[in-house]
Order: sequence, then structure tokens, then C-alpha cells
Amino acid sequence: MKTKLGPMPLIYPIPIALAGANVEGRANFATIGDCGVMGLRPPLVYISLHKNHHTTRGVLENGTFSINFPPTELLSLTDYCGIVSGKQVDKSALFDIFYGELGSAPMIEACRSNLECRVEKEFSIEARHIFVGRVEQTYVDEDCLEEKDGKPVLPDMRKLDPIIYALDNRYYRIGKPIGVGYEEGKKHRSG
Amino acid sequence: MKTKLGPMPLIYPIPIALAGANVEGRANFATIGDCGVMGLRPPLVYISLHKNHHTTRGVLENGTFSINFPPTELLSLTDYCGIVSGKQVDKSALFDIFYGELGSAPMIEACRSNLECRVEKEFSIEARHIFVGRVEQTYVDEDCLEEKDGKPVLPDMRKLDPIIYALDNRYYRIGKPIGVGYEEGKKHRSG
Repeated sequence: MKTKLGPMPLIYPIPIALAGANVEGRANFATIGDCGVMGLRPPLVYISLHKNHHTTRGVLENGTFSINFPPTELLSLTDYCGIVSGKQVDKSALFDIFYGELGSAPMIEACRSNLECRVEKEFSIEARHIFVGRVEQTYVDEDCLEEKDGKPVLPDMRKLDPIIYALDNRYYRIGKPIGVGYEEGKKHRSG
Repeated sequence: MKTKLGPMPLIYPIPIALAGANVEGRANFATIGDCGVMGLRPPLVYISLHKNHHTTRGVLENGTFSINFPPTELLSLTDYCGIVSGKQVDKSALFDIFYGELGSAPMIEACRSNLECRVEKEFSIEARHIFVGRVEQTYVDEDCLEEKDGKPVLPDMRKLDPIIYALDNRYYRIGKPIGVGYEEGKKHRSG
């Protein structure tokens, strides 16, 4: 039996990331869960920011932003970045920051991976500003990667150790691998 | 040290869902990872579909769609729905289906939760069709819910038991709770 809960954006799990932008030349970061994949080739992602958020100004100013994925050891600092605004607190002082190929999208060293993005499309909807970004470069901690045929490949997600969120307002760790994409379903093929 | 991997939409974790639409009166479902939250009040979500996918036609036809979250016990059937197209296989026969308030967005009984959505905005970008939906109703399996003060509340995500994906092409389970939103960061507040 299904229970109706009323309209809720009950997507889960929700990835927790720090969206970064330069606001008047200073790095700022907002903790967000509303980000996701929009395409693979070319690589498209989005972030949804409240129109009044400090980071929003920076993305509009530069046309660039970053998405940084903190490991669980950064949980309290990540949660803190979602509690306070860059209008009151200088969040650039909280992290060691680096810049990549675009020059204007600040990224966090202590995050296990960082996406450097150029705004490809933007629009407002209700109180939100949505930025669709094309990923220009992807940075991953060297010691998180594995090698296959001499090339770096993505590791088991447990090594990236993401902070996961859900609308029950709890944070979670990732669990165990349970299967391989485009393999598990083959047994249902007829013929 | 950071390693550059080249441009990748390396968002993680990725939620695995079945996007549903009626195509010429018959329910069809596409396995997607590119869905996410765009706003809380009002509740906005998005799905990104390849413009040639069968489900895309149905969303354009009706202006409605569903997002269904399968538990891990549905892993192989969910993976299968990402391998075959509704153009070749009648996916309406794979599931018990119900309809809600909109009448045209098919939902899957065996999924632990279902979002019934009306298209609020749509656009094309590269080979993708993006649909931003307003959630009109949220359905959750009764035995997944907990009660607080006589009202149903969202349970620990482990009860919803989502299928999680990442670009390493593996599926994962959810792990353990590690904290509470807007609480963990309070210790960093000064003064």
C-alpha cells in the first residue's frame, strides 16, 4: 500500500557538494545537494542555487563555477558552509584553494574530486537560479585512483567516501558494491 | 596531488530511478541516473533523457512523467530497463502499474517511492531533452514510513534501500547514517 505524502522533491540519494565561485575576486562556497548529471558526451552537469545566495552572484559574474566533493571527514565543515552565508563569513579562509584552466572557478584541495565548469545555459525558475555547466576539467586525488593498462581509472566509490544526504535530513556513507552497469539485466533478455 | 582526468560529469553518488511516461497510451520506463532536485518550495525536480529515447516521446505527448525509485531487490530488472528500448520491448508488462492524480504518469507499485510530476519547463541541450517537473504527489510504501506525532515521516534511507550508481559503472547500496543536517556544522560557529 502507498501512502501519499503530498508534493515533495523526494529524489534519493542526494549528492552533497560544495559549489564554488569567485564573488568580487574572493572564493566562496555553498553546500548544495541539488546538482546532477545532464549529459555524458559532452559532459553536462547542473547546480541549482537560491537567487539570493552569495555564490549565485559569483557564477553570474564569471560564467564559471566548480563542484567539489568532500569526503566524510569534512562533514562538519561542509554542513557549516550550508549554515552560514558568504555575505557574513569569509569561506575562502576555510580551505586551501586552487584554480585550474578557467582561472576563475575556485576549487578545494581537501575535496577528493573537483569539477571545473563553464556555464553553458542558465535560467530562473521560482526562487532558483539554475546553471547548466559544461565540465572543462575533472580533478581527482591521485591516491584515490586505480590503474588499468597504465591509465588512471575511477575507483570503488568507497575510496572517494562521499557525503550523502536525504530528505530525512540525515547524512550517510556509501555502502557496498552490488553489481555492474549494463550487466545485471542481461539475464532478462529473451532469445 | 590532483590528477586531471579530462572532462567528465563526475557527480557522485548518482541516484538510480525509472522514469515513466505513457507513449501512445502504453506505459514505458527508462532507467536513468540523471535526475535531481531543483527546488524545495515549490518541489521541483528534473530528468534528462536522450532526445531519441522512447520515453521522451511520451513526456512530450502528455506533459507529465513519473520518477520511481526501485529497491536493490529490483536491480537486475532495473538494469534491464536501461539496456532495452521501449521501441522493441513492452516494458509495461514488466511491472504492476498504477496511475495517480494526473492520470497520465504511470508509476511502478514495486518501487518504494514514486514522484508524479507535471512538466513545468523543458529545453534541449546537445542530444538531451531536459524536463523540469513540479511534483504533484509523492507516494511511499506504507511499511517504509515511520510515525512522529501521529504523522508519517521519512525513514532512515536504508529502509528505502536505493540502488546507487557511479561513473565507475558499479551499483552500490546506501551505507550508515553519519550525521544530521544543519547540526554537524554548528561547532564551527564563532561567538
